[in-house]
Amino acid sequence: MALKFKNAKRIEGLDSNVWIEFTKLAADPSVVNLGQGLPDISPPTYVKEELSKIALIDGLNQYTRGFGHPSLVKALSCLYEKCYQNQINPDKEILVTVGAYGSLFNAIQGLVEEGDEVIIMVPFYDCYEPMVRMAGATPVFIPLRSKPIDGEKWSSSDWTLDPQELESKFNSKTKAIILNTPHNPIGKVYTKEELQVIADLCIKYDTLCISDEVYEWLVYTGNKHLKIATFPGMWERTITIGSAGKTFSVTGWKLGWSIGPNHLIKHLQTVQQNTIYTCATPLQEALAQAFWIDIKRMDDPECYFNSLPRELEVKRDRMVHLLESVGLKPIVPDGGYFIIADVSSLDADLSDMKNNEPYDYKFVKWMTKNKKLSAIPVSAFCNSETKSQFEKFVRFCFIKKDSTLDAAEEIIKAWSRQKS
Amino acid sequence: MALKFKNAKRIEGLDSNVWIEFTKLAADPSVVNLGQGLPDISPPTYVKEELSKIALIDGLNQYTRGFGHPSLVKALSCLYEKCYQNQINPDKEILVTVGAYGSLFNAIQGLVEEGDEVIIMVPFYDCYEPMVRMAGATPVFIPLRSKPIDGEKWSSSDWTLDPQELESKFNSKTKAIILNTPHNPIGKVYTKEELQVIADLCIKYDTLCISDEVYEWLVYTGNKHLKIATFPGMWERTITIGSAGKTFSVTGWKLGWSIGPNHLIKHLQTVQQNTIYTCATPLQEALAQAFWIDIKRMDDPECYFNSLPRELEVKRDRMVHLLESVGLKPIVPDGGYFIIADVSSLDADLSDMKNNEPYDYKFVKWMTKNKKLSAIPVSAFCNSETKSQFEKFVRFCFIKKDSTLDAAEEIIKAWSRQKS
Repeated sequence: MALKFKNAKRIEGLDSNVWIEFTKLAADPSVVNLGQGLPDISPPTYVKEELSKIALIDGLNQYTRGFGHPSLVKALSCLYEKCYQNQINPDKEILVTVGAYGSLFNAIQGLVEEGDEVIIMVPFYDCYEPMVRMAGATPVFIPLRSKPIDGEKWSSSDWTLDPQELESKFNSKTKAIILNTPHNPIGKVYTKEELQVIADLCIKYDTLCISDEVYEWLVYTGNKHLKIATFPGMWERTITIGSAGKTFSVTGWKLGWSIGPNHLIKHLQTVQQNTIYTCATPLQEALAQAFWIDIKRMDDPECYFNSLPRELEVKRDRMVHLLESVGLKPIVPDGGYFIIADVSSLDADLSDMKNNEPYDYKFVKWMTKNKKLSAIPVSAFCNSETKSQFEKFVRFCFIKKDSTLDAAEEIIKAWSRQKS
Repeated sequence: MALKFKNAKRIEGLDSNVWIEFTKLAADPSVVNLGQGLPDISPPTYVKEELSKIALIDGLNQYTRGFGHPSLVKALSCLYEKCYQNQINPDKEILVTVGAYGSLFNAIQGLVEEGDEVIIMVPFYDCYEPMVRMAGATPVFIPLRSKPIDGEKWSSSDWTLDPQELESKFNSKTKAIILNTPHNPIGKVYTKEELQVIADLCIKYDTLCISDEVYEWLVYTGNKHLKIATFPGMWERTITIGSAGKTFSVTGWKLGWSIGPNHLIKHLQTVQQNTIYTCATPLQEALAQAFWIDIKRMDDPECYFNSLPRELEVKRDRMVHLLESVGLKPIVPDGGYFIIADVSSLDADLSDMKNNEPYDYKFVKWMTKNKKLSAIPVSAFCNSETKSQFEKFVRFCFIKKDSTLDAAEEIIKAWSRQKS
C-alpha cells in the first residue's frame, strides 16, 4: 500500500464500530431487532405530516442559517427557557447539529486540546471514547458500580459513582467530564445529590461538563430528570446536548442541539462552519413546527414529552417481567429505552464462535443467527480494561411495537422451555 | 476568561466565514439576493414530492446504514458506473455525507496528516483553506492566471494554471491537491489537457487528488465535464465529490457523496462514524428515488441533468449582457452558476465603510445596503496573499427566477444611468 494512501494518525485504530457491525447482522428481515436504539413504533402523525407539507415548499429546500434554522432555534430557546427558568439566546447559546452525535463531536473538537484528559463514566455511549481520542486527548474512565443486592429487584439507581474514586480522576489536565443522564445503556437517572458531587468537582477543578441528555423526556414514575447546567456555577461550564431523534422518535432525522453559554457555544459553531456548515432545512423547519405543537401543551398528558414515557413505561415493565420469567435479573431502568441483563444463564452454545471477542459479542451474534433475536453487547460501551466486568450483559431496546415485543417474548420463552 | 473556556488550537483563527456574514446581510427581504449559491427557482416537482411521500413512511424516519442509505448508494453506483465506464462498489467505494462540505471534511481529516501540504488553486471555494488548517496541514496556493485579452469576450477558459509554476508547488510533503471543476467562482471547466498536467504531477509526486465536482452537470455549450478519476493511474488516488444540492437544486438537503477506491474511502468512513455516524434517512431515500427517475432518461432532453444546464445557459447569457450593458467585462463562465466581474468602474461611495477590509467586501456591503442587491466578494475565495489580486471582483449567482433577475437588472441599470 502506497504511503500516501494511509489514514491520518488522528483516526488510527478508530475504525471499528458496534453499530455498523450489529446493524448489518440485524438487517435480515427474519430477525426480531431489539438492538440499535431505533423505534419501530410510529412517530407522532403531526411530526411526519409537517415534514410532508414542508417538502413541497420551494424555499424550505434551500440552505438556511448555518448555526440553526431561525424558527428552530427560536422554538428550542422557548422550550428550554421553561426548563432552565432562564433566558436562552437562540443565536448565541444554541447550535443545531447533525444529531446529538454531531454535538458531541463539535464540543470535543472545539474545546478539547491534544494532551487534555476527559473523564468518561463506564459503561458509556460508545462514541465518547473514539471522539476523545480523535481530538488527541486521553479518556480517563470511572466505572459505575452496583451495590450488592439480594432478593429484590435490581434497579439502575443501584449503580453509582464512588465520590472519592471520582475525585481521584480529576487533575490539572482534566478538560471535561462527559455526563449522560438518563444513562445509556443502564437507564440510570442521576439524582440531585449525585449531580451535586459532579458539579462540585467540575467547579473545584475548573472543568467543563458535556452533558448528554438525549433521553431527557424519558423518565419513569418516581424519577425526575435534572439538568446539571442549572446547578449553581455550572451554566458557564456546561454544554447540554439534546436530540430530535429521541424526543420525537425520528432517529433518521439526525438533528440534535447543543445549549450553553456563548463563550463555549461559539467554539462549537466554529467547528460546525468548518465541517458541515449547516443542517438540512426541511427537517429543521418540520422539527420547529412539531416543537411548537408540544410547547403549547406541556402540562397536557397528550403532550408527546408526557405521553411517550407513559407508553414506554408499560413496555419497560413488560420487558422486566419477560426477562424475570426466564430466570434473568434485569437492571430495571429509571429512564431511557433500554434494559440490560446478565444473559449468561441462557443456554447458548458459543463453541463455534470466534474466540477473540468478549462473551457478549459472541452471545449476540449467536442469538441473532440461531434465535433470530438481536440485541447489543454491553461491553461495546466499555473501554478495553472494563469489558470483562460487563461482558455477561446484553442491552435490549424496548421502544418497539407490541407485535415486535410479542415476537421477542415468543423467542425468549421457547428458548427457556427448550433448556428446562 | 477562564483558560478552560478557550477553543482548542486546531480551530484557532478559523472562526470567520463569508457565508455567515453575507447571508445575514442578505436576509433583509427587500434585498435582491445574488449572493450565496442558493437557487430560488423551483426544484423539480418529483424531487419535492418524493420527500413529501417518504416523510409519511414510519421506517424511513429512522436510522439507516451509516455510510449511506442502501437504496441511495445503489443509485449512485448505477449513475456513476455510466460516467466512469467502470463498476463502482456501492458499499465500499461510496460514502454519503452531509453535503459536499462533509465529504471535503471527511477526506481531509481522514487522509491529511499534521505537517502535510495540500495544494489549492486560487480562487478557491472558501472552506478548503480552514479545513486544511484544521487538520494541522499547510495549504500551498497557486493562482489561476488570465491571459491578456483585448476587445473580445473574457472567458473562464482564459484563466489557466502555469504548468511549471504548478510543478514547483509539489514536493515530498505534498499529500493532496484539491481540484474544483467546474470551478467556483470563475466557472472554468478544466480541459482534458489541463487535467492531464495535474494527473501527471499527482502520479509523479505520489499525491492524492480531492476533486470537487459538485457542478458536474452544469456545463454550457461547447464544454464537457471530465472526471480526473477516469485518467490512467488516477482512480486509485482520487476522491471525487458530488452534491445533491447542486444536482437537484435542493441545497437545503445537505447531502453529498465521495467516490473513490476502498483503500481511501474506508478512511473517510472512519471519520464519518466518529463525527456524525449517518445522514438523514428520509432525504437519502427521496434522493435515491429522484436519481432513479433521471438515471432512466439520461439521453432524454427532459432529464434534469440535461434540462437544468439548458435553462441556466439562458440565465448566464442574460447576466453577461446585463453586466456588459453597464460597461463591465464579466468573465463568461463555461460551467457552474456563478459569474464574476470587476466592479470597480461602478460608482460606489465607500468612504463610510470600515477600512480594514478588502475593496470587494466593502463594495458588497455598500451595494447590499444602498442598492438592495447582494453578491459575494471574490477575495473571500483567496488566501491573504492573493486577496489584492481579486478584490475588484464580485460574484453573482444566476440560478434565479426571471423575476429575481429582472429586479437585479432594474437595480444595475438604474445605478448605471445615475452615473452617466
